[in-house]
Amino acid sequence: MEKQAITSRLTQSEIKKLKSLHTKKGRNREKLFIAEGIRLLEEALKFERKPQKVYFAPFLITPRAKKLTDSFRKLSVPIRAVTAKAINQISDAETSQGVLGLFDIPDYSDKRLFDKSRYILLLDNISDPGNAGTLIRSAVAFGFDTVMVLFNSVDPYNPKVVRSTAGAIFGLKVRLVDLADIINEKKNMKIPLIAADSGGSKMETGIKKIGPIKNFIIAIGSERTGLSSEIRKVADLSLKIDHLEAVESLNAAVAGSIIMREIYYQKIIKVK
Amino acid sequence: MEKQAITSRLTQSEIKKLKSLHTKKGRNREKLFIAEGIRLLEEALKFERKPQKVYFAPFLITPRAKKLTDSFRKLSVPIRAVTAKAINQISDAETSQGVLGLFDIPDYSDKRLFDKSRYILLLDNISDPGNAGTLIRSAVAFGFDTVMVLFNSVDPYNPKVVRSTAGAIFGLKVRLVDLADIINEKKNMKIPLIAADSGGSKMETGIKKIGPIKNFIIAIGSERTGLSSEIRKVADLSLKIDHLEAVESLNAAVAGSIIMREIYYQKIIKVK
Repeated sequence: MEKQAITSRLTQSEIKKLKSLHTKKGRNREKLFIAEGIRLLEEALKFERKPQKVYFAPFLITPRAKKLTDSFRKLSVPIRAVTAKAINQISDAETSQGVLGLFDIPDYSDKRLFDKSRYILLLDNISDPGNAGTLIRSAVAFGFDTVMVLFNSVDPYNPKVVRSTAGAIFGLKVRLVDLADIINEKKNMKIPLIAADSGGSKMETGIKKIGPIKNFIIAIGSERTGLSSEIRKVADLSLKIDHLEAVESLNAAVAGSIIMREIYYQKIIKVK
Repeated sequence: MEKQAITSRLTQSEIKKLKSLHTKKGRNREKLFIAEGIRLLEEALKFERKPQKVYFAPFLITPRAKKLTDSFRKLSVPIRAVTAKAINQISDAETSQGVLGLFDIPDYSDKRLFDKSRYILLLDNISDPGNAGTLIRSAVAFGFDTVMVLFNSVDPYNPKVVRSTAGAIFGLKVRLVDLADIINEKKNMKIPLIAADSGGSKMETGIKKIGPIKNFIIAIGSERTGLSSEIRKVADLSLKIDHLEAVESLNAAVAGSIIMREIYYQKIIKVK
């Protein structure tokens, strides 16, 4: 009897709403996304990103997840205990850890495109969720404060992207952007754009030439088609990573991460 | 009528056998794996790896795939034209390009563990197929000749791994290995082992100290648990990649690729 007393039933319409967040359409309508599992929620806590609500199944969770829900409770986040069946219904994971958070999708549409952004990673035609998430993770690791995602790429709030960021999605500004807006605002604001491009100069020497710089954009394109021609046209510098010709190209997340690391290593980025 | 004349029917037992290659058990029994799609097969051709057989659906393929089958035909590879339905049945891809190759899984069990291998990437507990494939791709890009995969990792002939290598799996020796064998043979042969480990020395300076070296092993562990303690114990050098503490770790494929690139960049590897 006690088991039933502490969990509450989700209505069919609540379950339907939560499940709709696995689709882009649903997320766009609700302006919400789901982050599942202990690790992602611990990172949200670390980066001080408060969920709108946390759902957990008391009979699925470990002591570590219990501690997590207690921390959110202290921050006055509404916590909802539900049945294991309900959590599995709304979970995207193969095996649910019994806990997930509902987060607002930040809306920056009233802010200028480059408002407060200094070091920007631009994703152009990155369709693989694992690659997008990995790039966001590396961006946080190497001191970038913003990821701009062109509409030709995977939605950054896709559950697989969120998982691949390992929580780094809570560590920087993520903004969906239009190609034309980037091109215009780049010109207006005179922000340098650095393109990862196999036709560019050698990365190590190219970065050395950058010198003191207030802000910049690094653009990473897809493995198959490379960067959009419009982006390539406005690039101030193109960088290539030396490798043997035995492979045509590196994985996009690897290439982007190698360039971001080199920029971090050469101290182009001023870390607070 | 003509349509039927040029394709032949696969029997149920043929389809069953081919489909079984999507599982590890099936691959182990048949000693075969499947590589699907134009890009992978073009790479096989480039690396001179002859498939045992090629299957294609004449009414699905593009001129580029047609050219590919012609090239294999010239090499006396048996080519089998089958129906679109049959190719879709044996395909693992979401949308089949209508062509796939059946390849032997190379067996090195009669060879010494480090036979002819000079630059070895060792995968320890790498369970994500995308990460394993990406690491193999980077290994070929940066001059490694062998990937050794511990049994605790994903099977390198898993279709998702093969796809993530973008064909690089045909560009080096891939060998499944036992942890105890690695430890023993490393001692016998006195091969240095370099571990990617967040507790190690800074990568850039650590690699500088390596100097001229005939052969070595780079070991990459999982993001969650790191390297096996047995591997860490026998490491001659541990390397870490500097990054902000905002993230706990980098993605395993990114970390491994960054270290391999640095080794390549610092010319520790003698490329032919």
